[in-house]
Amino acid sequence: MLVVMRQGATAEEIRRVAAAIEEMGYRATPLPGRQRTVVGLMGNDGRVDASRLEGLPGVLEIVHVSQPYKLASRESQSANTVIRLAGGVTIGGDDVVVMAGPCSVESEAQIIAAARAVREAGAVVLRGGAFKPRTSPYSFQGLGRQGLQLLAKAREETGLAVVTEVLDVEGVDLVARFADILQIGARNMQNTSLLKRVGQVRKPALLKRGIAATVTELLQAAEYLMAEGNADVILCERGVRGFDPATRFLFDLTAIPLVHRLSHLPIVADPSHGTGLRDMVIPMARAAVAAGADGLLVEVHPDPAHALSDGAQSLAPEQFAELMRQARAIAEVVGRRVAEPAGVS
Amino acid sequence: MLVVMRQGATAEEIRRVAAAIEEMGYRATPLPGRQRTVVGLMGNDGRVDASRLEGLPGVLEIVHVSQPYKLASRESQSANTVIRLAGGVTIGGDDVVVMAGPCSVESEAQIIAAARAVREAGAVVLRGGAFKPRTSPYSFQGLGRQGLQLLAKAREETGLAVVTEVLDVEGVDLVARFADILQIGARNMQNTSLLKRVGQVRKPALLKRGIAATVTELLQAAEYLMAEGNADVILCERGVRGFDPATRFLFDLTAIPLVHRLSHLPIVADPSHGTGLRDMVIPMARAAVAAGADGLLVEVHPDPAHALSDGAQSLAPEQFAELMRQARAIAEVVGRRVAEPAGVS
Amino acid sequence: MLVVMRQGATAEEIRRVAAAIEEMGYRATPLPGRQRTVVGLMGNDGRVDASRLEGLPGVLEIVHVSQPYKLASRESQSANTVIRLAGGVTIGGDDVVVMAGPCSVESEAQIIAAARAVREAGAVVLRGGAFKPRTSPYSFQGLGRQGLQLLAKAREETGLAVVTEVLDVEGVDLVARFADILQIGARNMQNTSLLKRVGQVRKPALLKRGIAATVTELLQAAEYLMAEGNADVILCERGVRGFDPATRFLFDLTAIPLVHRLSHLPIVADPSHGTGLRDMVIPMARAAVAAGADGLLVEVHPDPAHALSDGAQSLAPEQFAELMRQARAIAEVVGRRVAEPAGVS
Amino acid sequence: MLVVMRQGATAEEIRRVAAAIEEMGYRATPLPGRQRTVVGLMGNDGRVDASRLEGLPGVLEIVHVSQPYKLASRESQSANTVIRLAGGVTIGGDDVVVMAGPCSVESEAQIIAAARAVREAGAVVLRGGAFKPRTSPYSFQGLGRQGLQLLAKAREETGLAVVTEVLDVEGVDLVARFADILQIGARNMQNTSLLKRVGQVRKPALLKRGIAATVTELLQAAEYLMAEGNADVILCERGVRGFDPATRFLFDLTAIPLVHRLSHLPIVADPSHGTGLRDMVIPMARAAVAAGADGLLVEVHPDPAHALSDGAQSLAPEQFAELMRQARAIAEVVGRRVAEPAGVS
Repeated sequence: MLVVMRQGATAEEIRRVAAAIEEMGYRATPLPGRQRTVVGLMGNDGRVDASRLEGLPGVLEIVHVSQPYKLASRESQSANTVIRLAGGVTIGGDDVVVMAGPCSVESEAQIIAAARAVREAGAVVLRGGAFKPRTSPYSFQGLGRQGLQLLAKAREETGLAVVTEVLDVEGVDLVARFADILQIGARNMQNTSLLKRVGQVRKPALLKRGIAATVTELLQAAEYLMAEGNADVILCERGVRGFDPATRFLFDLTAIPLVHRLSHLPIVADPSHGTGLRDMVIPMARAAVAAGADGLLVEVHPDPAHALSDGAQSLAPEQFAELMRQARAIAEVVGRRVAEPAGVS
Repeated sequence: MLVVMRQGATAEEIRRVAAAIEEMGYRATPLPGRQRTVVGLMGNDGRVDASRLEGLPGVLEIVHVSQPYKLASRESQSANTVIRLAGGVTIGGDDVVVMAGPCSVESEAQIIAAARAVREAGAVVLRGGAFKPRTSPYSFQGLGRQGLQLLAKAREETGLAVVTEVLDVEGVDLVARFADILQIGARNMQNTSLLKRVGQVRKPALLKRGIAATVTELLQAAEYLMAEGNADVILCERGVRGFDPATRFLFDLTAIPLVHRLSHLPIVADPSHGTGLRDMVIPMARAAVAAGADGLLVEVHPDPAHALSDGAQSLAPEQFAELMRQARAIAEVVGRRVAEPAGVS
Repeated sequence: MLVVMRQGATAEEIRRVAAAIEEMGYRATPLPGRQRTVVGLMGNDGRVDASRLEGLPGVLEIVHVSQPYKLASRESQSANTVIRLAGGVTIGGDDVVVMAGPCSVESEAQIIAAARAVREAGAVVLRGGAFKPRTSPYSFQGLGRQGLQLLAKAREETGLAVVTEVLDVEGVDLVARFADILQIGARNMQNTSLLKRVGQVRKPALLKRGIAATVTELLQAAEYLMAEGNADVILCERGVRGFDPATRFLFDLTAIPLVHRLSHLPIVADPSHGTGLRDMVIPMARAAVAAGADGLLVEVHPDPAHALSDGAQSLAPEQFAELMRQARAIAEVVGRRVAEPAGVS
Repeated sequence: MLVVMRQGATAEEIRRVAAAIEEMGYRATPLPGRQRTVVGLMGNDGRVDASRLEGLPGVLEIVHVSQPYKLASRESQSANTVIRLAGGVTIGGDDVVVMAGPCSVESEAQIIAAARAVREAGAVVLRGGAFKPRTSPYSFQGLGRQGLQLLAKAREETGLAVVTEVLDVEGVDLVARFADILQIGARNMQNTSLLKRVGQVRKPALLKRGIAATVTELLQAAEYLMAEGNADVILCERGVRGFDPATRFLFDLTAIPLVHRLSHLPIVADPSHGTGLRDMVIPMARAAVAAGADGLLVEVHPDPAHALSDGAQSLAPEQFAELMRQARAIAEVVGRRVAEPAGVS
């Protein structure tokens, strides 16, 4: 860590910074420049909490040189994390894993139809919300426990694994009983109580990037899960807040190769939320696979015109089948293959 | 609500949109323009969920004309909400209420010293975190229950009301036992489970704006609290995510008069988090009061150089006393007065 | 266009809005809702300037239904614009056109080496800056006229077409004498004097998106060029300003299919500026082609470690050759082919 | 400057960075940490161009410790720059200077009426656009030279100084003949050709912050003007691009005390463009003065309902008079006074 002193910082101020560093148990190395002095903090193993130094007189800025996460970092583990689901699906290896289904579970007929349609087209994981975090209290909030039961039923029928969102600490045990992967939504990416609790579960977690989270903050959120013992973390790029109202979010695909450089964790992309526009989902799914995504999360509804939520961005089954064909072709070019459902050839 | 059709939408597509609107129980009024047709949805009382319409063929865009919140809106209640704390402090009336204290409760000595210092300078509410939502799992996470007890002790000593953050549904009862105002932090502004639970408490809530939340979304989050029965919601502007690394956040003071136009709820401003820089706190506190803020939330530490968190933005007691002097002078110019602690003249 | 009135707008206010619309030569159709009245402006051909209406009492908001550009819109021309360069290269058709070269022209040896290297790898257009718009006045500002002459020399040697930036109205004639395509940089996207002047030139223009420009504003800037008579406009996505310092810009690839939906103009992508990080250029070039980009703009330097500008994002020739191989494979999957230099098989 | 090496950078890579630094004429001091090595570049006077180092193998990041501007920095000149206009108005001293008038000069009657009204209320500078940079080529582009003549006429009538925008290099001499202050608009903040040319004029320049410019970039743009010899630069905060459509821009008032810390140049604030909403102009004008602004730029139209541009944000004369009353009261509290027109008591 480097402590940059203001121009004109006094010798006494520099001395106090050095003393504080030594008190904290590290070594201080002042580097006097023509305009400013920089004091190096040496001997640390990982990022140091700079709160004490930030408040000292004469300090202009703290520059961190170490990453603020450890377990999630590529430096701590060079090989990719590969997560294995029941049924043989792996995430983070050579396969590109497609997770698809409706925004919300609405009824047995709907979720079964959706599950069959996405399996038919080649998805290996069924997505669907039972507990929905909606911006307005008056929007449909999901079927809750009943939604989980319907997802389990759809799994029985199709053999697909199930990913669904968990909204709060109280719901973790319940969701973990039904789901194969626990999704933490973008709004909850920094809900540290929830992160800690999901970190104690022995099931993989799908952690969506917050709409204003940096990649570093996403990895710090993953660190919360990992620090509690859950090493099976799948990250998800789903668009960040931008300034152009033409799309619902700004889909940040550069985050994919960036995460691969900084971390060993797999990262999937959600072009449905990432764009918010049905017409953009297929081209951006192609782009995500081309950028190196380890999987896709796609909203598919058997009848988008009657969806209770997110109708504007859901694909109809035949559109999703087209997406799968294109994703397979791109995956091949980048030396990967799209995972296929068991028993489908 | 207005449904804008794509150019070239067919008569059949327009008919289907109109039919869907009628099915939803409203009246459809097509307005055929030269380039596009707009279908008005009439007869609604408040915002309609547009999910079904968004998914229909030929639909370009939905334009909402009604606000997506009711109880929080100025249209539903024209008079300002005025919240009364024990001890006679009111928020949302003529008074400008200053809440001050350290980022985290660190020890009995620290919180008592801080409480005395801020009361001495004129604050009427003590702030201080017992449960801290930190970006990194390795940062200091707060003293928890012990921190709450110390806050209560500081209240006894000084008569100040206490505001402190509640992180999760499980903690609500505990925090409500000790605090006078329950703070919901920016990271949790869309934690709907927490919002619903705090909405059931009979104590005022301080709702901080999420770092990427629009003012509309802030008011929708307030609506969650109010829909559960808690009408005593204090909003807080604390800076949004910007692109300039020179400040930690981008302090959006225009949100203050905007909230006053759209809503009857009080809004306070937090120049400490809003800027992240100690030197900016006093001028931006002045600016916030000048913009019409109903109060200020300020980080004050008896010894900023030894703070366990947020040292760089905490004021020392004498700096805070200067802030109070300036805030009083600005408040007077805008026809208000800074609330004074009971028994201080 | 729709004029949304405030709740509680008086009948007189609504009447004045209707009267103003009629005065402007259009038809006014009031739509009284339960909460608000909307007044439709009918009979317009294209977007109407709303300034007069915005200022009227009782007006809450103006909602534009027409696009604010005409010549650039897909609605005015449904077939893609295909731009033909000397030498047979076409942009906007089936080919994916790769433009590559150094950030700045530095010397004859450098630009000739760069031109040969990029041609060898398969680029058909040479990029290189003679006039450089630098953030700091103390950074290298380019070789100016001499740089243009060196670009022309490189063209003679290699047969590549040349794209280079024009900074101001005064430089247009000079640059047009040497370049095959005139580049308007991101900083100048709304320099309307420059846009108008380049609109009068009979050479194609490459218009880079401003770092905070919406796609609509990009198309409005193109409209400036087209309104002056220059129909050969190539748009370029090069990253927008984001909040995450991990990348220099936020590369907005969704803009590519969005532009294709809204406009008939070709759009290319610049992964070098779009990410600012050498390691990200190849994956994001793949992603751009997968998203449907009509071409790529890539920084290549014969010796990146000695580049006078943008060293951190420039590819070495062998890295660029690898990019070309991958781009060709992706292009094929999306039904296109990467244009090849004449005489290369 | 500090060069942060990647973890695992080889001794040879570190040696090459050090060698490159020595070749550039500076001294290299390696600081080996447990995780990474940092190489300090010492002996520089001001910021060094890092292009050569960024491209070297093993380099992770460059951290600049010096400011990237000199003449504009507080470090180069500790006393505030005070700019004197004819007629005795000073900007950057104790006075708060109000510049007001219509968005565009529309006619003689309009500009004379506006000038009289704003002078009556206490403005000392008349603003008004003769050359307008509009997003759409079909919007009103200003009266051009005739507009300048009308501004000069209004000056004769009222004694107010005149500030008006210059759009391009070609227009500089013409505008400088008529205006007292040359305005460079937000869209042109990085139009380096224009900056250099205005830097050669012997009249003050008003430099508006670009909508996505950091404060550092604003000061670098000022440096372009100063490096050419024009020391009389007035900066202007006018809102940056944000994500909330509720306001046209996000008014960043923290930029005011930040500029005052980093630079000796005066900075004024434009609450009309900064918010885009008439109702927000007065509270945000108050906030700007409270934050320490050296002046205000306010849109005032004698008849906002008939304005040819920006009607929605223009104040009527009586609203402006109210703004002035409130600005005077706030100015007094912060130890300043609002400048008064000559001959007005």
